[in-house]
Amino acid sequence: MPVTALIPFKPGNPKTRLSCVLDADERITFARLMLADVVRAVRGAGCEPRIISTEEYSCSIAVVDVIPGGLNETLNDLLEVMDGEVLIIMSDLPLSNPEALVRLITTEHDMAIVPGRGGGTNVIYLSRGSDFRVSYYGSSFLKHLRIAEERNLSCEIIDSYRLSTDIDEKEDLPELLIHGQGKSREYLESLGFSISIEKGRVGVTRPEKT
Amino acid sequence: MPVTALIPFKPGNPKTRLSCVLDADERITFARLMLADVVRAVRGAGCEPRIISTEEYSCSIAVVDVIPGGLNETLNDLLEVMDGEVLIIMSDLPLSNPEALVRLITTEHDMAIVPGRGGGTNVIYLSRGSDFRVSYYGSSFLKHLRIAEERNLSCEIIDSYRLSTDIDEKEDLPELLIHGQGKSREYLESLGFSISIEKGRVGVTRPEKT
Repeated sequence: MPVTALIPFKPGNPKTRLSCVLDADERITFARLMLADVVRAVRGAGCEPRIISTEEYSCSIAVVDVIPGGLNETLNDLLEVMDGEVLIIMSDLPLSNPEALVRLITTEHDMAIVPGRGGGTNVIYLSRGSDFRVSYYGSSFLKHLRIAEERNLSCEIIDSYRLSTDIDEKEDLPELLIHGQGKSREYLESLGFSISIEKGRVGVTRPEKT
Repeated sequence: MPVTALIPFKPGNPKTRLSCVLDADERITFARLMLADVVRAVRGAGCEPRIISTEEYSCSIAVVDVIPGGLNETLNDLLEVMDGEVLIIMSDLPLSNPEALVRLITTEHDMAIVPGRGGGTNVIYLSRGSDFRVSYYGSSFLKHLRIAEERNLSCEIIDSYRLSTDIDEKEDLPELLIHGQGKSREYLESLGFSISIEKGRVGVTRPEKT
């Protein structure tokens, strides 16, 4: 049985912190292409992607379940009845690649986790979904470690730059332009984004917007 | 023969981008403790640390060579006569651990490299030092990949959050407070730094300074 990969997704008004460089329609497209990059990596690692969308959303790349509601409530309701292996991966991780995901799903521990920059949780692997409950938002990485401990689950922390890099704001875009290999990077380039170096620091420029 | 680990270090007025939260003396102490954390990780990976300081600097944790001059010039002069294995690691990577460094030094390629956030280069491993020349500053990660190609050196990119996280500015401090295990984290805590969550984002607070 392949590992089921749950990918929570919010199609409407996504990535508002990128409003300074992308307009509303562009943010929608960009979020969908990041999701597509994640789906591709998930499939490359041999997992079966299942997009969990808060709103009606149709796409050809994976099964979509529409479940309105809060992230934690939705995921915990799903986990409760999942006795097999589960991966939970955020949709804004376009640097994901199969190699990094394989490191999680081949862990010898009960679960594996990848922190996000800023204390968040970007990816969780559970050898048995129903054993765990998630608690996203805020400093969720430490919360998830605590939950693992309370439930007597051994947990490996996976040290991956690619999986720890979520794309939220303008300062994150150089990472995608330098290290991205998928559709979301191509899209930024098609909009004219390129890497710039100012005062020794790397940023991005976009001809018509910045 | 253990791998020689060159650790460039600038003792005077370090980490100016942390001036908003650390005064001049604190920045000096903090930079030294980050260096100590790096030295410890390097030793843990079985490498022999050699601090390359731009100014007079004495410490008990490793051999120090004082070589005034530019980073690239100094390192390239050293590399030219190093026929063995060399690791070049920056001193502001206090999340370094032996496991991550072992991934570099056991590469099956001619060299391995870890990008830093923002296009930089945080760690380079060379199976033969004299084969390579460095070019730090700006978007050095892509420059180093190009140099490897020009010199026909196969290069593995190591995907490590810990090694890609250099501590440069206030926004980087939560990473150290959450994931650090060494002296530099302890020092921040001794100054009263703690993680704070504002508007769902993780930051740091320091009672007497912020």
